[in-house]
Amino acid sequence: MPKKQTSWVTAADVARRAGVSRSAVSRAFSPTASIAPETRERVMEAARSLGYQVNLIAREMIMQRSSMVGVVTAGFENPFRAKLLAQIIAALGRHKLTPILVNAEDPVQIQQSLDMLLSYRIGGIIMTSASPPLGLARQYLEGEIPVVMINRASNLPGADVAVSDNAEGASLAARLLIDSGATRLAFVGPTKPSYNGRARCAGFLRATQHIAKEDRKLAHPVETLNTPGDTYECGVAAAHALLSPQNRPGQAPRPDGVFCSSDLLALGFIDTARQHFGMRVPEDIRIVGFDDIPAANYDNYQLTTIVQDTHALADTAIELLIDRMNAFSGASRTRIVPVTSVVRRTCA
Amino acid sequence: MPKKQTSWVTAADVARRAGVSRSAVSRAFSPTASIAPETRERVMEAARSLGYQVNLIAREMIMQRSSMVGVVTAGFENPFRAKLLAQIIAALGRHKLTPILVNAEDPVQIQQSLDMLLSYRIGGIIMTSASPPLGLARQYLEGEIPVVMINRASNLPGADVAVSDNAEGASLAARLLIDSGATRLAFVGPTKPSYNGRARCAGFLRATQHIAKEDRKLAHPVETLNTPGDTYECGVAAAHALLSPQNRPGQAPRPDGVFCSSDLLALGFIDTARQHFGMRVPEDIRIVGFDDIPAANYDNYQLTTIVQDTHALADTAIELLIDRMNAFSGASRTRIVPVTSVVRRTCA
Repeated sequence: MPKKQTSWVTAADVARRAGVSRSAVSRAFSPTASIAPETRERVMEAARSLGYQVNLIAREMIMQRSSMVGVVTAGFENPFRAKLLAQIIAALGRHKLTPILVNAEDPVQIQQSLDMLLSYRIGGIIMTSASPPLGLARQYLEGEIPVVMINRASNLPGADVAVSDNAEGASLAARLLIDSGATRLAFVGPTKPSYNGRARCAGFLRATQHIAKEDRKLAHPVETLNTPGDTYECGVAAAHALLSPQNRPGQAPRPDGVFCSSDLLALGFIDTARQHFGMRVPEDIRIVGFDDIPAANYDNYQLTTIVQDTHALADTAIELLIDRMNAFSGASRTRIVPVTSVVRRTCA
Repeated sequence: MPKKQTSWVTAADVARRAGVSRSAVSRAFSPTASIAPETRERVMEAARSLGYQVNLIAREMIMQRSSMVGVVTAGFENPFRAKLLAQIIAALGRHKLTPILVNAEDPVQIQQSLDMLLSYRIGGIIMTSASPPLGLARQYLEGEIPVVMINRASNLPGADVAVSDNAEGASLAARLLIDSGATRLAFVGPTKPSYNGRARCAGFLRATQHIAKEDRKLAHPVETLNTPGDTYECGVAAAHALLSPQNRPGQAPRPDGVFCSSDLLALGFIDTARQHFGMRVPEDIRIVGFDDIPAANYDNYQLTTIVQDTHALADTAIELLIDRMNAFSGASRTRIVPVTSVVRRTCA
C-alpha cells in the first residue's frame, strides 16, 4: 500500500521516474501492446521504487478517471431523499456513471466506505444527506476527488453545491399563507441542526416582514419553533409545543398559518392539530410544507407545499461533478435550482 | 474485448497456457513481485494469445472475487423498498461488500448496467424489485455471477431467494380480521402482476377456509380484488371498486374486513372508505396491511399490519449471496423469513 493514501502517485509519475511516456506505462501492463521487454522492466522498476503495488496503477489504468461515483445518503426513510436518490441514479446512468451507495448514518460503514472508495480511485462523490460528514468530504477533496453536495451550504473550498431555492420557497409559502387570510404566522423546522431549516426560516422571516411592510400588517410577529429534525414525530411534537394552551403565555391566540420546513413535519403537525386539538385544516389553521413527497397528495392530507425539483437537482449536481472531474481546480460553485408551489387543500 | 463476454477466461487459463503457476500470472503484473523477465514475457504472450486485453485480467487480479455487489431495485418511492434498501446497504457494509445501485425501472439504464457490471466482474447481484428483469438475471447466472432475489419466486435455476413468510402473514391477517368480528372478508392486491400479491391472496383464502371450518362460519365467501399495483392510488381505486353500491350486485352488503397486500394500498383504501364513503375504520370496516412502513404508525392511520423483517431479509439474502460467491454451483435455495403482526387501531 502507498504510505500516504491521499497523495496519489499517478501513472504519469511512474512515467517520469522511468523516463518513458505515459502510454509506455499503459503498454507495460498490457500483453497485447507492443513494447520492448527492457522498457517494460524499466516501468516495473519505477513503479516498484515509488512504493506502489500494481493494483493501484492497474486500477488507474482501467479507470483512468473512474466511472464510479459514491452517493452518500442518509435517512432513506425520508421519502424526499428516496425520490432524490432515484433521480440521482437515473442522471448518473445517463452519463454512464456508476453509483456506489454509502449510508451516512452508520459511522463504521462510513469509515469503511471512505477507505474503499479511495482505493477504487472513485470519480467523485455526491452527498445528499442533510448533515453530510464534512470530515469525509475534506478527505476526498485532499485526494482531488470531486465532491458535490445537494441542499447544503458550501463551506468547503473545492466542493460544489446544487441547492433548491430556499429563499424563494419560503417567500412563496409566506405569500400563500398571508393571501389565504392567515395573520398569526409560525415557522416550524430544524433551524439549528439543518442548513435547509435555517435557510427556510430566514427566508420566511424576511418575506413576511417584506409583505407586512408592503401590503398589510400581520397581527403578530412570526413565531419560530426549532425542531430536532425533519420527521413526522417532530411535527407531532411541534404541534403540541405550539398549540397547547399551557404553552401560550397570556392566552396568546394560536397561530393560524404555519410553514413547516418539510412535508413530513407538516403531516405530523396536521394529524395532531386535528386529532389532539380538534382544529380544522385549513379553516382554523393553514399549513404549507416543503418537498412535495407522495403523501402530500394523499386524500387525508392534500398538503399545499413547495415543490423541490428533484430531477433538476440531480442533473445540476451531476453537471457540476462532471465539470470538476474534467478539471479539479477552481473555486466552489453554487447552483440554485428553482422551486414552485402546488396549492392543495391545507392552504388555498 | 473478449469475443464472448459471458465466457470468462480466468487468470488460471492464462497460467495454463503459459505453463506457469496462477501466482506467476499475478506476479507478472506486479512490479513489486519477484519474477524473471522471461517468465513475465511468457505470461504476457499467453494472455495475448488468448485474445485478452490486460484490463480484464488486471480487473480479475484486483477483484479476484469482486467485492462489488449490484443491487437492482425499482420503486424507490415505495417506503417498504426504501427501508429494505437501507438494510441491504448496511448488511453489505458489515461484510465489506460494496453496493452498486441499479434502477430496474429504466430499460436503457438496465442494459447499460448489465454491460457495466459484467465488465466489473461483479461479485453478485441482489434483486429487490417486485418484478425483476429475469432476462437480466439469466445473463448474470450464465456468467457464473450469483443472483439472490428478495421476495420473489425462485424459478431460475441457480438463483437463491430470501422471502417473507407470505402464507404465515396472510394467516395472521385472516385471524386478526375474524377475531375482531369481521364476517365479510375481502382481499385487495396485485394477484396477477406480483408474486407476493398472489402468494398473500392464496394464503389468505387458505387460512379463512381453515378458520371457517374449524371455528365458525363466515357469512360470505371471501371477495378478491386484483389491483394493477401496490400503490396508494391503487388502494383508492380498489375502495371505489369494492365499496360503491353500483358495484355490489343484488345490494350485497359491503365487506367489513379487508386484507390489503401492502400498507400503501391500505392507506389509499382507508382514506377513500372514510372520506368518500363516510365509513368508520374499524367500526364499519376493519383493515389489515402488510409491510409496516412508517406511515402505518401515523396518527391518522394507526394501521394494523404484518411486519416484514427487513433486517432479517437483508441478512439472509447476503448470507445466501456469500455462500454462492464461495461456491457457485448447487441447486437454488429458498429461505423463508418469519413475519409478525402489529395491532394498531384499524383492526383491534
